[in-house]
Amino acid sequence: MTRTGTSSTDLSSLMLGMAQRARAAASELVRLTPAQKNDALERMARAIEAGSSQIQAENERDLAAGRAQGLSPAMLDRLALTDRRIAGMIQSLREVVALPDPVGETFDIQTRPNGLRVGRMRSPIGVIGIIYESRPNVTADASCLCLKSGNAVILRGGSEAFHSNTAIVEAIRGALRGSDVPEDAIQLIPVTDREAITAMLHLEGQIDLVIPRGGRGLIETVVREARMQVIKHYDGNCHVYIDAHADLDLARGLVINAKTQRPGVCNAAESLIVHAAVPDPFLASLLGDLIDLGVEIRGDEHVCALEPRAKAATEEDWGEEYLDLILSVKVVDTFEEAVAWINRHGSHHTDAIVTREHGLAMRFLAEVDSACVFVNASTRFSDGGEFGLGCEIGISTDKLHARGPMGLRDLTTVKWIGLGTGQLRS
Amino acid sequence: MTRTGTSSTDLSSLMLGMAQRARAAASELVRLTPAQKNDALERMARAIEAGSSQIQAENERDLAAGRAQGLSPAMLDRLALTDRRIAGMIQSLREVVALPDPVGETFDIQTRPNGLRVGRMRSPIGVIGIIYESRPNVTADASCLCLKSGNAVILRGGSEAFHSNTAIVEAIRGALRGSDVPEDAIQLIPVTDREAITAMLHLEGQIDLVIPRGGRGLIETVVREARMQVIKHYDGNCHVYIDAHADLDLARGLVINAKTQRPGVCNAAESLIVHAAVPDPFLASLLGDLIDLGVEIRGDEHVCALEPRAKAATEEDWGEEYLDLILSVKVVDTFEEAVAWINRHGSHHTDAIVTREHGLAMRFLAEVDSACVFVNASTRFSDGGEFGLGCEIGISTDKLHARGPMGLRDLTTVKWIGLGTGQLRS
Repeated sequence: MTRTGTSSTDLSSLMLGMAQRARAAASELVRLTPAQKNDALERMARAIEAGSSQIQAENERDLAAGRAQGLSPAMLDRLALTDRRIAGMIQSLREVVALPDPVGETFDIQTRPNGLRVGRMRSPIGVIGIIYESRPNVTADASCLCLKSGNAVILRGGSEAFHSNTAIVEAIRGALRGSDVPEDAIQLIPVTDREAITAMLHLEGQIDLVIPRGGRGLIETVVREARMQVIKHYDGNCHVYIDAHADLDLARGLVINAKTQRPGVCNAAESLIVHAAVPDPFLASLLGDLIDLGVEIRGDEHVCALEPRAKAATEEDWGEEYLDLILSVKVVDTFEEAVAWINRHGSHHTDAIVTREHGLAMRFLAEVDSACVFVNASTRFSDGGEFGLGCEIGISTDKLHARGPMGLRDLTTVKWIGLGTGQLRS
Repeated sequence: MTRTGTSSTDLSSLMLGMAQRARAAASELVRLTPAQKNDALERMARAIEAGSSQIQAENERDLAAGRAQGLSPAMLDRLALTDRRIAGMIQSLREVVALPDPVGETFDIQTRPNGLRVGRMRSPIGVIGIIYESRPNVTADASCLCLKSGNAVILRGGSEAFHSNTAIVEAIRGALRGSDVPEDAIQLIPVTDREAITAMLHLEGQIDLVIPRGGRGLIETVVREARMQVIKHYDGNCHVYIDAHADLDLARGLVINAKTQRPGVCNAAESLIVHAAVPDPFLASLLGDLIDLGVEIRGDEHVCALEPRAKAATEEDWGEEYLDLILSVKVVDTFEEAVAWINRHGSHHTDAIVTREHGLAMRFLAEVDSACVFVNASTRFSDGGEFGLGCEIGISTDKLHARGPMGLRDLTTVKWIGLGTGQLRS
């Protein structure tokens, strides 16, 4: 298996071959019982357990190369497979075993006047491509979610995690050889050439869905090249809006939690919008609390006048996902201005209102065009685990098919079924 | 308003302006009640009624140009707005008024251990682009479905129907001026340049979804150029499979209905698959019945040996959507071979099995990878009206978001909502 330098013709035939093997595996997967899939998942968990020192040795090769290439400490941290992360991968696998199998679920069954019973049935999507960066645990998470939902998966991790991902997939595929699940249900692209991604994105009809997770540049490339459907996972520029009728104590706790509890994740708040009727002394004291917690404030004129330590926000600040202890702060005159601001500057990920007014709470839910909309709760709850999905493939910022945290069900498609007794159309 | 010859810079700014007005309209639409939207729909129906002679005069211009250009009789027929078709447009509008409003529907509400109530809420997608060919009634149907589901729509009809579509949209927008719905909720691209489509397809962020309806070439172009999500409406190469355990009388009626009741539509059967255990005398007599009804048979070796009037099927026949009185016929040795054949040669639109065997019926539903799968019922039932949707925007051959007949609900997105009392993440 070569890592790079493969010709583009060879890459096309490599990818086509992988996609065809994945399709064949998918047609077997669709026939398996939940018990057969769960047995394979349990074997995968045991294989990662048994192979952990081998996986960590390969991870060490990636880390050494990363240090030599001068990767940032944050990147190296995301790349590292510590004992705790290996245990986390194994635990995720076992959590997915415990989740209900979405395949074959039927609903909305009705009997038509002619006696035809029609309804919907969940089934696997087929072959899914997942393109991701740095974190090698995605390799195991994505594999187990795809397998449980009856899909074959083609994985493309970051080149910096190549040896780690290869070791994990080798362990997993070894486990499948002892199970009823075909080994080719889970495949990793064995080269790091970027052209392999392009070749994969042109295999419409062979690959049903591609899910890119990573930086904006990666996702934009995938959208431009892909000929099949794509579910995007863009940034979270999340807002908290403190309404004129807010419980101010609740607002204080919520803003601090949304901003500081874990600032480096996509559902952390990046921007605070405050109604002009909120008393200045409260806003000044909240800004002071945030600054005491190490948060840099970038505010509009009103905010800068109130808090001398605040910097003036630039136009770019309003659209920024800082992933850091920085918060942009804007004062608005009306509820409508707040909603329009969030819809214009936000990333349609997660936004929250703090209010006592039922009518405004309901309007916020309806009018804010985001994947997750909260009333009087921290944006940090926008998470598959917190929503009871058990495990997530990511947080979709798309509006179609899957929006927000994507769980097992979002990896299925819904077909129409019709059960007749010889009905004919007239 | 020019029809063609606009420069590509002008087209880009034309399309951007339309998309921005659509977005502004969408942000108003989301706030309207079902009664306000229904009032606008009723006004639209009355405006088409009142404007029908004007619409038909403009349609006559398109028909005259079409005849001069030598359009086929089938194309001219699709283009013609007869009295009956105008009445059909008005009736569709009133049927959509009667349908339940999908916007604001909440479901899957649960209370998490921390007291946070989370669930799902349907909301409009936002701005939808619809690209279609010939039939001008799509202009009214798509407008009313988008409006009822709270979306702004940008319409791009075929150039051969330009005057008809313009007249319909003028009537509709005139009606909106007397209603609470902003006029820009419904816009028609006022030029016929193909580059206007390209300019529209690059407006990601401004237009949320594009639905192409028409020939394969059009759809492929849209998929290649679009930077937003697309829901495709490809062909129907529909199969009927007669299993070894079929009720043969039922099979005979069903095959004849699926093939001959209306051969020119996408849910008509194009291919018959027969298990080798089905008695030859039955198959011979079924083929004879079909030939008597004017159906041309293109068969495999077994079929051609049984029925001398059958032609030998070529490899292309197995993938063909004839939309005509032609049927390809193939004999298979096993159930598994039938399923694999359908998944390989079909277009994942609609397929049916005739069988008495419950186990095989259930396997067919699970294993055939199509939008609609029937047991002992004609493929012709794959239709929004027959499924109780009232009206459809088309029949999606995509697997994500909307699969099969697309109704009002498929024009909505589902956001997560969370109702809290100050919950913080720890």
